[in-house]
Amino acid sequence: MIAEIVSVGTELLMGQIVNTDAQFIAKHLAPLGLACRYQVTVGDNAGRLTEVVRAALSRADIVFFTGGLGPTDDDLTKETVAAALGLACVPFPEEVERLTRFFRDRGRVMTPNNLKQASFPESAILLPNPNGTAPGCILEAGGKAAVLLPGPPRELYPMFTDHVLPYLERRCNTHLYSRELRIFGMGESMLTYELRDLIERQTNPTIAPYAKTGEVTLRLTASCETDAEGQRLLSPLIEEITRRVGDRLYSTEGKPLHQVCAELLAASGRSLAVAESCTGGMVTSSLVSVPGCSDFLIEGCVTYSNDAKMRRLGVSEETLRAHTAVSRQCALEMARGIRQSAGADYGLAITGIAGPGGGTEAQPVGLVYIAVADAAGAEAVELHLYGDRDRIRRTATLHALDLLRRKCLNRTFVRDIL
Amino acid sequence: MIAEIVSVGTELLMGQIVNTDAQFIAKHLAPLGLACRYQVTVGDNAGRLTEVVRAALSRADIVFFTGGLGPTDDDLTKETVAAALGLACVPFPEEVERLTRFFRDRGRVMTPNNLKQASFPESAILLPNPNGTAPGCILEAGGKAAVLLPGPPRELYPMFTDHVLPYLERRCNTHLYSRELRIFGMGESMLTYELRDLIERQTNPTIAPYAKTGEVTLRLTASCETDAEGQRLLSPLIEEITRRVGDRLYSTEGKPLHQVCAELLAASGRSLAVAESCTGGMVTSSLVSVPGCSDFLIEGCVTYSNDAKMRRLGVSEETLRAHTAVSRQCALEMARGIRQSAGADYGLAITGIAGPGGGTEAQPVGLVYIAVADAAGAEAVELHLYGDRDRIRRTATLHALDLLRRKCLNRTFVRDIL
Repeated sequence: MIAEIVSVGTELLMGQIVNTDAQFIAKHLAPLGLACRYQVTVGDNAGRLTEVVRAALSRADIVFFTGGLGPTDDDLTKETVAAALGLACVPFPEEVERLTRFFRDRGRVMTPNNLKQASFPESAILLPNPNGTAPGCILEAGGKAAVLLPGPPRELYPMFTDHVLPYLERRCNTHLYSRELRIFGMGESMLTYELRDLIERQTNPTIAPYAKTGEVTLRLTASCETDAEGQRLLSPLIEEITRRVGDRLYSTEGKPLHQVCAELLAASGRSLAVAESCTGGMVTSSLVSVPGCSDFLIEGCVTYSNDAKMRRLGVSEETLRAHTAVSRQCALEMARGIRQSAGADYGLAITGIAGPGGGTEAQPVGLVYIAVADAAGAEAVELHLYGDRDRIRRTATLHALDLLRRKCLNRTFVRDIL
Repeated sequence: MIAEIVSVGTELLMGQIVNTDAQFIAKHLAPLGLACRYQVTVGDNAGRLTEVVRAALSRADIVFFTGGLGPTDDDLTKETVAAALGLACVPFPEEVERLTRFFRDRGRVMTPNNLKQASFPESAILLPNPNGTAPGCILEAGGKAAVLLPGPPRELYPMFTDHVLPYLERRCNTHLYSRELRIFGMGESMLTYELRDLIERQTNPTIAPYAKTGEVTLRLTASCETDAEGQRLLSPLIEEITRRVGDRLYSTEGKPLHQVCAELLAASGRSLAVAESCTGGMVTSSLVSVPGCSDFLIEGCVTYSNDAKMRRLGVSEETLRAHTAVSRQCALEMARGIRQSAGADYGLAITGIAGPGGGTEAQPVGLVYIAVADAAGAEAVELHLYGDRDRIRRTATLHALDLLRRKCLNRTFVRDIL
């Protein structure tokens, strides 16, 4: 079944607010087998709204409208959609009564405009709105359905979850099953090149790559009757991708790298302490974002100055003089030092030059060393990263987490990334 | 002039990401006199993309496209828009060379796919992308203009500001002068209520409020001939807003709170050390995002465990037993402890319950204490924050930075925020 989302509101067109409603609705559609092909935003203008409503109802089986259900003359959505479906609005006595009571209880005056909110086509399915005055509704005509929802997210989200989802489940017979594969250590173009034959011949399941800073996600989706059938359809594809990508694949369940690390640490019962320089707390903070991180995280130290590296971590003055703070030697001593002083099983360390200043020919901006230490010793990796200060810090954070993950898994140690 | 925004990406249609690009572009259009009538989102599908491109180019004078400029076969935007304008793409030798160098410098293999990113219509105006591999471009034909931008916000935002805005000013024959006022400590609705008369009578300059987690930005824009004239138009408005908002206004130049703190510290020649518990490194990391932070930042400690609070900061066992780690007393000892052990002028501390677990009736999720210490003593503030783990940690970070800012300015100490 084909779906479309139409967002009505001049404040969206003007960029005064970001359209989170469209995302909220969209992410619920795929699992129901509803293919959303267009999202359209239009202002509170009768002519253009009518045009958009007609186009949407002609090319989709079910159209979701957000906004324009309020009491003002600008709020045109319900009247316009009803007209396009050939339905006339009439007052619903129980809604008139509910609104009258609502205003009376709050000592507020109900204007004639407010009564507009109590009128619907006779066949409408009303969607209660405990968080506002405008109910939503579902209109059905000629095999099409229009779902009209209020704009404010705090009204829309519960209405959608409590009333629209059950309706959609009844209406839809197909089902989609999705898995999200997350990969670190290869770019989107290299990944899609390695998988080009799989991507070219995709029908069911489908493969959708998308890239974020420093990592790539593959969304695999099977159209199926049940989750079990979906799993059967996806598992040979996941196996084949795993064979090609190897241990750069770190989650088949869409988990971020810091969560994978947290789960590996929690499962092993081992503890961690982190010493950061250029990342400045990003690695520790990403681990703290996982609830329950106190089970494994003893502490983090942001030893930004040389003084702090010596005092907190026991990095030797000799190392800082001979090799500088941005060196393999310093990273190794930081990892050993934080491990020892915190009494942790693992010590993780990052030191580097994030820029924009501070680079030299021998030590350019983007030069970063990461190191991990355990009872058996310490190992370091040299990284050459690019981008602005923020990007270098973010990718250094991901590399450090990936090093920790590999250590937890006893995987082949990664070589320097030049 | 009529504008339209077309967002290309299956990940938007599937609701995997929220469309912040469309908002970012939209909010820049009105001050230029560009009326945006539609925003359309479409997936990576050749047929539907062609249809959307043709409709947009027929009803608008200038169309902004985001996404679909990458190297994969899914990335169709440039080819489709060029075809709709009757333009053929050819390789640009300097772009081929730039890409080749980019991959060689990083020791990465350039796949044949990547070369797609170096081809453009001969008349294209290229938009450099220092944060990614795909340049944007502007195509002009038959009185229409198409502006093609990469999807990732960190690539799109600077490209738009640095290259597209100057182009639009030339094309629209307007010059815009903008200032961004940043405010912490009052919500968007309270702020717009306080400024309602100014907002209602706005013509030139315009006032556009935007809310982010825990803070509000006001963008003031004057349409003018020169920057000097723009400044003259804006300064009485900025004065009036400052009079009403007071020292909750922390920047009139769009600087984030951590940068304002960094500049205050650098200017005063005073040093800082930070001790964090629930924020887990966010405060330190935000300060490290400012280049040159080594001038004032000695170190940060993420003392997540009680053990680390005692060992690193000298918090007393008695305090932890009698008051727990989430207490005014503990925050004060953390601030004093990190100041002393780091030998810093200021010590800043945060401890709290970010949830989702760990809350009790006496100490609910969202209870956070922040404290700042200097040579004269230490002061603490009790916060009651709401939202999920991430929101609580982010707002606690902003409150801690604001406390530091007020300390640097010797401003009235904020009272507990209940």
